[in-house]
Amino acid sequence: MKTLATFNGQIQPLEHLKISANDRAFYFADAVYEVVRIYSGKLFLFAEHLSRLGRSLASLGIKCDLSLVEKDIMENVNANKIFDGYVYVQVSRGEAPRAHQIPKNLKPNVTIYSVEFVSDPFAPFRASGIKASLHPDWRWKRRDIKSTNLLANCIARDRAESENCQEAILYEEDDFAITECSSNNVFIVSSNTLRTPPVSNRILNGITRQCVLAIAKSLNIEAVEENFTVSELKFADEVLITGSFAEVLGVVSVAGCTIGDGSVGPVTRMISESFQDLKKASH
Amino acid sequence: MKTLATFNGQIQPLEHLKISANDRAFYFADAVYEVVRIYSGKLFLFAEHLSRLGRSLASLGIKCDLSLVEKDIMENVNANKIFDGYVYVQVSRGEAPRAHQIPKNLKPNVTIYSVEFVSDPFAPFRASGIKASLHPDWRWKRRDIKSTNLLANCIARDRAESENCQEAILYEEDDFAITECSSNNVFIVSSNTLRTPPVSNRILNGITRQCVLAIAKSLNIEAVEENFTVSELKFADEVLITGSFAEVLGVVSVAGCTIGDGSVGPVTRMISESFQDLKKASH
Repeated sequence: MKTLATFNGQIQPLEHLKISANDRAFYFADAVYEVVRIYSGKLFLFAEHLSRLGRSLASLGIKCDLSLVEKDIMENVNANKIFDGYVYVQVSRGEAPRAHQIPKNLKPNVTIYSVEFVSDPFAPFRASGIKASLHPDWRWKRRDIKSTNLLANCIARDRAESENCQEAILYEEDDFAITECSSNNVFIVSSNTLRTPPVSNRILNGITRQCVLAIAKSLNIEAVEENFTVSELKFADEVLITGSFAEVLGVVSVAGCTIGDGSVGPVTRMISESFQDLKKASH
Repeated sequence: MKTLATFNGQIQPLEHLKISANDRAFYFADAVYEVVRIYSGKLFLFAEHLSRLGRSLASLGIKCDLSLVEKDIMENVNANKIFDGYVYVQVSRGEAPRAHQIPKNLKPNVTIYSVEFVSDPFAPFRASGIKASLHPDWRWKRRDIKSTNLLANCIARDRAESENCQEAILYEEDDFAITECSSNNVFIVSSNTLRTPPVSNRILNGITRQCVLAIAKSLNIEAVEENFTVSELKFADEVLITGSFAEVLGVVSVAGCTIGDGSVGPVTRMISESFQDLKKASH
């Protein structure tokens, strides 16, 4: 992955970029991030991502000039000449000798890089849908903050792959409520109604998730933000996941159970097509 | 904090140590760590810490030669000429382009540094006890793994300090069960019985915690590993915390409620004295 990174405004190859061991991201995962898709050279829903980054930073009391971050992101994407790909931006609280106490007024470290897709990583699954596994949601309780405390996400994704699945759908161990996936939100369709868990500290409010709710409204598809359980998921007519990379992707099997008739369902297809239209309109 | 760090066997000043941005600790908190106290130039309960590091690594499937880590720790402590202080060791899965999927067979990055105490950070509180706040336990579900997913711990400690407390005691939001503190285990004494939450994925099984249970046995103090709630904590006769830095420390107030008569209780004092004897015997 050859790419130029921008670290606190300075451009250099990502593979050579080195961060201080005293960066609090390294010791404490005291950092937040965003991933923004780029279509036809244009950042997609950039304002929404920047605004969420601002909320994550504010939740942690990290002070950072977002207009500078915005400028650095634009410059990095231009330097890497990205046409179809994504930009990653991470803001850590900054550098200090290791101590749990949160130091005040550190200078945050801002790491940005952007990558061109060789091909859509989900291309093989767009028509046929993906297989998902089920994993207990081991993440921390403030999933509404997009932080780098991601080890639980990585473990779930790893288990999914070992079960020959493309994604893990996560559920709370106490009440079997579905929350989201290792790096995507999740929806079901039951009785012609689209359902996704409501916004709370149990999930990250995905930008694509918000898009899909807006699309459903415009298509007159009934949509509700309500929790559902593992059983409701398995017996749903359709299951779909949403995310910056996944976009809108059908799930045709969950933990070995076939969903519906095992093909991507009509509601998922309608929403997915509308999402593609939205992408094109944004260029 | 001037100290020499050992990174994958190479010694250099910690303040100059730089880690690749592609280290998975930086993006995903995909790393584990230990902190070992040094008394009179000797690593205290070193075998126990190394063994726990091995368990954390095994839980995450990170392959790392522990005998090499042990050797590097000894060399680092010698290089820094530590007499009274601690050594920090962190093992991350290694470097790879950012992706949730866990790459197989990465070369782990091992960061070690050791620090001499100018003074015992808890000296002002050894006789009088500390004040603790209460905070919901927002950590991930695999607290038995000593990983760098520590943002929830930092937030709790930060809130404690803003309430003029030295530590935060954490409780589960669903059943008000006490788990541990931001970086210490917690015990209560009620009806002459010492009580601490049992070993499970809800707590880290602290080395000092294990020590205190052994000390209680040797002193014929009845000790049980059983959960207790926020109310039981507030109405306990004594509250104490244990950890590599705290050692054995009385808690005289919790969220503004005075514990017992507001001074460090007799059971806590007995255990603390025995712990000091154990330290001396280890030199």
